[in-house]
Amino acid sequence: MQNTYRVEGMTCGHCVSAVREEISALTGVSDVDVNLETGAVVVTSETGLDRQAVADAVDEAGYVLVG
Amino acid sequence: MQNTYRVEGMTCGHCVSAVREEISALTGVSDVDVNLETGAVVVTSETGLDRQAVADAVDEAGYVLVG
Repeated sequence: MQNTYRVEGMTCGHCVSAVREEISALTGVSDVDVNLETGAVVVTSETGLDRQAVADAVDEAGYVLVG
Repeated sequence: MQNTYRVEGMTCGHCVSAVREEISALTGVSDVDVNLETGAVVVTSETGLDRQAVADAVDEAGYVLVG
């Protein structure tokens, strides 16, 4: 399944990598696609994801989950 | 001695870290201070630095030495 989120504050490729890395580490996540321009983050996972867990991962990377 | 350069394209703390890391790896460099807002990079070194070596380090990090 896929879920799309929106992350605020990413400004460069390093930011994208940091967000991708943290979300990828969540259990069940198989793919993370990040669009720097729009802040859209498409997460592919085997099971449903806890939104708070995704928010925490984004926070850990230093950004904010806003949508 | 200290030399001040200007680097273009840094947008966040990750960019600052990347530039600092690459320049720090140059022989003789003891300190690198990067100002994200202005792009100013102050390099402290024991000996004179080859400008091309600094430019190459900045390029390696993914940015451009412009001043």
